[in-house]
Amino acid sequence: MTEIHSAWLPPEAFRAIGSRRVLVAGEGPLVETVREEVGRACAGFGGSLADGADLVLATWESLPDGARKVLDGAEPGGDEEFLIGRRGGVTVVAGGPAGVLYGLFHVVRMGERAFGADFAAEPHRPAMRRRMLDHWDNVDVHPVMGQVERGYAGGSIFWEEGGPRGDLERVRAYGRLLAAVGVNAVAVNNVNVHATEARLLTDRLGDVADLAGVLRPYGIKVHLSVTFAAPVVLGGLDTADPLDEDVRAWWAEATHRVYEAIPDFGGYLVKADSEGQPGPFAYGRTHADGANLLAGVLAPYGGVVHWRAFVYDHRQDWRDRSTDRARAACDHFAPLDGQFAENAILQVKHGPMDFQVREPVSPVIAAMPRTRLAVELQVTQEYTGQQRHVCYLAPMWREVLGFEPWGPGGRSVAGVAEELVAVSNVGADPYWTGHPLAQANLYAFGRLAWDPGLDPGEILDEWIGLTFPDVAERVREPLRTIMDGSWETYERYTAPLGVGFMVRPGHHYGPDVDGYEYTPWGTYHFADRDGVGVDRTRATGTGYTGQYPEPWSEVYESLERCPDELLLFFHHVPYGHVLKSGKTVIQHIYDTHFAGAEEVAALRPVWDGLAGLVDPALHARVGELLDEQLRSAREWRDQINTYFFRKSGVPDAHGRRIH
Amino acid sequence: MTEIHSAWLPPEAFRAIGSRRVLVAGEGPLVETVREEVGRACAGFGGSLADGADLVLATWESLPDGARKVLDGAEPGGDEEFLIGRRGGVTVVAGGPAGVLYGLFHVVRMGERAFGADFAAEPHRPAMRRRMLDHWDNVDVHPVMGQVERGYAGGSIFWEEGGPRGDLERVRAYGRLLAAVGVNAVAVNNVNVHATEARLLTDRLGDVADLAGVLRPYGIKVHLSVTFAAPVVLGGLDTADPLDEDVRAWWAEATHRVYEAIPDFGGYLVKADSEGQPGPFAYGRTHADGANLLAGVLAPYGGVVHWRAFVYDHRQDWRDRSTDRARAACDHFAPLDGQFAENAILQVKHGPMDFQVREPVSPVIAAMPRTRLAVELQVTQEYTGQQRHVCYLAPMWREVLGFEPWGPGGRSVAGVAEELVAVSNVGADPYWTGHPLAQANLYAFGRLAWDPGLDPGEILDEWIGLTFPDVAERVREPLRTIMDGSWETYERYTAPLGVGFMVRPGHHYGPDVDGYEYTPWGTYHFADRDGVGVDRTRATGTGYTGQYPEPWSEVYESLERCPDELLLFFHHVPYGHVLKSGKTVIQHIYDTHFAGAEEVAALRPVWDGLAGLVDPALHARVGELLDEQLRSAREWRDQINTYFFRKSGVPDAHGRRIH
Repeated sequence: MTEIHSAWLPPEAFRAIGSRRVLVAGEGPLVETVREEVGRACAGFGGSLADGADLVLATWESLPDGARKVLDGAEPGGDEEFLIGRRGGVTVVAGGPAGVLYGLFHVVRMGERAFGADFAAEPHRPAMRRRMLDHWDNVDVHPVMGQVERGYAGGSIFWEEGGPRGDLERVRAYGRLLAAVGVNAVAVNNVNVHATEARLLTDRLGDVADLAGVLRPYGIKVHLSVTFAAPVVLGGLDTADPLDEDVRAWWAEATHRVYEAIPDFGGYLVKADSEGQPGPFAYGRTHADGANLLAGVLAPYGGVVHWRAFVYDHRQDWRDRSTDRARAACDHFAPLDGQFAENAILQVKHGPMDFQVREPVSPVIAAMPRTRLAVELQVTQEYTGQQRHVCYLAPMWREVLGFEPWGPGGRSVAGVAEELVAVSNVGADPYWTGHPLAQANLYAFGRLAWDPGLDPGEILDEWIGLTFPDVAERVREPLRTIMDGSWETYERYTAPLGVGFMVRPGHHYGPDVDGYEYTPWGTYHFADRDGVGVDRTRATGTGYTGQYPEPWSEVYESLERCPDELLLFFHHVPYGHVLKSGKTVIQHIYDTHFAGAEEVAALRPVWDGLAGLVDPALHARVGELLDEQLRSAREWRDQINTYFFRKSGVPDAHGRRIH
Repeated sequence: MTEIHSAWLPPEAFRAIGSRRVLVAGEGPLVETVREEVGRACAGFGGSLADGADLVLATWESLPDGARKVLDGAEPGGDEEFLIGRRGGVTVVAGGPAGVLYGLFHVVRMGERAFGADFAAEPHRPAMRRRMLDHWDNVDVHPVMGQVERGYAGGSIFWEEGGPRGDLERVRAYGRLLAAVGVNAVAVNNVNVHATEARLLTDRLGDVADLAGVLRPYGIKVHLSVTFAAPVVLGGLDTADPLDEDVRAWWAEATHRVYEAIPDFGGYLVKADSEGQPGPFAYGRTHADGANLLAGVLAPYGGVVHWRAFVYDHRQDWRDRSTDRARAACDHFAPLDGQFAENAILQVKHGPMDFQVREPVSPVIAAMPRTRLAVELQVTQEYTGQQRHVCYLAPMWREVLGFEPWGPGGRSVAGVAEELVAVSNVGADPYWTGHPLAQANLYAFGRLAWDPGLDPGEILDEWIGLTFPDVAERVREPLRTIMDGSWETYERYTAPLGVGFMVRPGHHYGPDVDGYEYTPWGTYHFADRDGVGVDRTRATGTGYTGQYPEPWSEVYESLERCPDELLLFFHHVPYGHVLKSGKTVIQHIYDTHFAGAEEVAALRPVWDGLAGLVDPALHARVGELLDEQLRSAREWRDQINTYFFRKSGVPDAHGRRIH
């Protein structure tokens, strides 16, 4: 198979639009994109681009008066907003140029419903001002990490062996898919910026401009990961001190040239003083100093800097139980609240560690009210099955976005964050994401960034309807069975009760309970013959619970009130500790691991039932991956159970086989 | 530093010879080498190549009558043998051409003692007919293993990034060092034969011939690792079945061409059906079938095939306690005893597993009386500190070679083996071996292969005397302090009581107690909260003890008689089991690990005392490595102790800090 999968935009998804008379009114590249989409759809399904229309897609300025009446005199909003309404057999979408584009894809999602009964004008606007995908793509193949760091879908769609891949049609198709879910920003290279990639800022800038040119008609701005040491490694200066005038001048000049090449360039993304990347600490400066330097040179052009809060000591001594990586981001950044420039955005991983299957929400999110925050998710499944396991992540993200750091009724994470950013799961694989069903995660990310209140099941239904339009009603139930609970299934057979990790060091696939236990990475479970878990209480542990506001600081501190699923993240408990479920910790470990593997075993027959309904190649690919998932889930089950049985000596209450 | 270290052949080591009148008599390339060595020595120290002589070095045919009398009418022996005697102020060495070369270096080792009091003629002959170094060097840089697999001394001295390194002077210097310790065979490429390396047999043969040309004057034959699949991957046949006539014809023709290019080519080295390498199993043939195919085509030219016995299931299920990797070589090969051709040599690792710091001797050595055996050692320190730790291995090798498989008074391993082979520890590093003191291991290997009865301490004295000739008497004591017990020190702070492994998977450096515990590699310790060790008894375990003849089959089977240092290799015991030493197993673990790290800490001041005596660059290099060794030893101590404390719950009897 060399053809690229159509994902959630197969031709059939445009049938409702394509079989109608459509007026597209307005100017500019985004409206041109809409016109092109509608034209292609009409060519396929017998409709027409016409004056008299069943559907009007127009910018406010170009909206015909008749159509304007359908919207009941609604007022224009921001560039990305749109209104949609239907009256007297005409469906009208009006908005800013990007809004019209998003409105088009809204109509695609609605399908025939958009042309049924009248409905009053509804305003649509994105909850997050920036909905961004970070590509951890390298230009050069990294000797350890490969072309895409933590990539599980083949090579990069942008880069190949040291230069641009050159297949801009593929990039264009990607931009189209992203526009259809509302993504409006893409960072095109890895946050770990190596030598070649650093030069994207300077002499390889043309490659970035090419990508920007292709993505522009889809409303997507291009961002660039830069190395904080650029003035030294590229500019030949002897310092990268953010308060040095020459350094500032160098960045100003470099940025000027970027905007000459890419007038709508989005901005810079920086991982500084983290896992070996250079940063302001080397010069005795703060991260605010570092971020503001770049914010300052970007501001004249309307650009922003995304500054990652993922800063911790990755050379920790495992013997030292007082240091706690979970504390690091808050310890580093909370004191800087209020010091960041207006166009500096602090990009915070959703949890305090590193994209584990279960983590509490990062306390940074509640700790910096005077700082613009982007919450970072990981669509690429580094710790959640690496696109070999089915793991539909929207339920986890929905929990994160709905979490109320100040307690029930207070603002939610979605209300605090101005942006939602995710590490992309896309590569040069024909299915885009390696596992065809992992497309749903990319889809759901965009949809939740637009509207964090959406229900993960409904998102899945949307995705199924678009991706499998001809057979949606026959595949919906089986796919929901396979995907709805897949995150919780994955959690059951992997690291228990929020303790995290237990993966093979390096590649992070498959189990290795002690793999990180005696390393410098700060990721420990402290299991001994008596118990397991990390004491992060103020009373006897690292004090991490104190980084939360009330009520969570008390809830997490309390062994009684702490939610079961996070128990081992916050507490070290004996194996005999009884959970709210009524089970002991050790029996919970056994039960969930047997159950998780059994749940995976049950997926294959469900999938087999879809044979003949979905494309045979796709069917075969998912089938093979389900086999691997089952093998891996059993390996997890057996290693985890054996490990804890050998340590605890407690037999399984049900006498099942533990090796 | 770009100069290459002189190792055990600095100019000063030739002072005794170079300050005398020396007659070199005979013809051929080896005698030319002797003449050149003596000429260079005399040029440096005022002696002369002359007729009237203090020293005569001659082949039997060219031996002057007067000199012959000094040797008391002794008879000529084999090509590599020599006699040395001294009478009336004349020292005489006579032998075959290689014998004269080895005799020269014997005189070098003797130094002034060779020219002191008269001594009667002594015959010298090598105990092992072949004394061979296997280079696990790749031609192409392997993406995981690098240029040299398990190499810790920089790149290959033969190959560089896909082709010959081209620095034949370096290879010449290597040949000279090897000749000085009696090595007479070198395999120039990795036993894991990848695509490029396979072609050394055919279109890249010229590169091998170049190496053979340089090594020939030092009495060293070149051998080649070949892939058993060569007829398929190089010859385009559709089978590599050893009984297929086309396959045989292909090998015969390829071998014919090899001997056209290299008339004294040594032979082939094969790792078959092992860790993914192809072999005769694919065709339902035995390893004897495979080896005899190659032996057959080599026989007309006097070549040999080395066939490795390192065959085991590297995809074992850790859940299955009945499969035992230690059994594999004997299970596979013992039934084939008597079936191998005369010029097929079965190459057996000295222990049943894989070059751990402590293993029993391989039972294969006693199980195949009708098969020519080579015992394989690992000079490269894969599991013994990777040339960052001081670990003088001669005491271990001496134990192996002196082991009597049939009990006290019976034949020893050295008596059974016809050859001694070792994986080289040499690379493009200026000190040859990364750690300068690791040169002693290469030296000792050659010396023990020549005479397995040598005392490791005396070998070390020789090495010190040659390597540091000017200051030998002042550095001898400190170096002996550092090196004599270094193997046992290394054992103390690493895996205890013969259980092995506990290293980081992949690179094998540093501790990871469970690193291989749940893997397919067959290397387990089975530690649980009650005890540790592998039950390999016939009574209750894998039955491995039954592969030994009496008395060892009974000694190892018996919990009471089994030597302490191998206890956990043969038995699974509770932590409270009392050793012959009177300590419990758990207290032994704690005590040895504290002691091992303390012993390493004591090395640095001793080494510091050599400042000003040895070359400053060498002194600095060893100092840095000792710091790393200490860091690593403490890491081993803490991980092992913590692991077993967490599992056993038994506190240290001396109340020392365990994390």
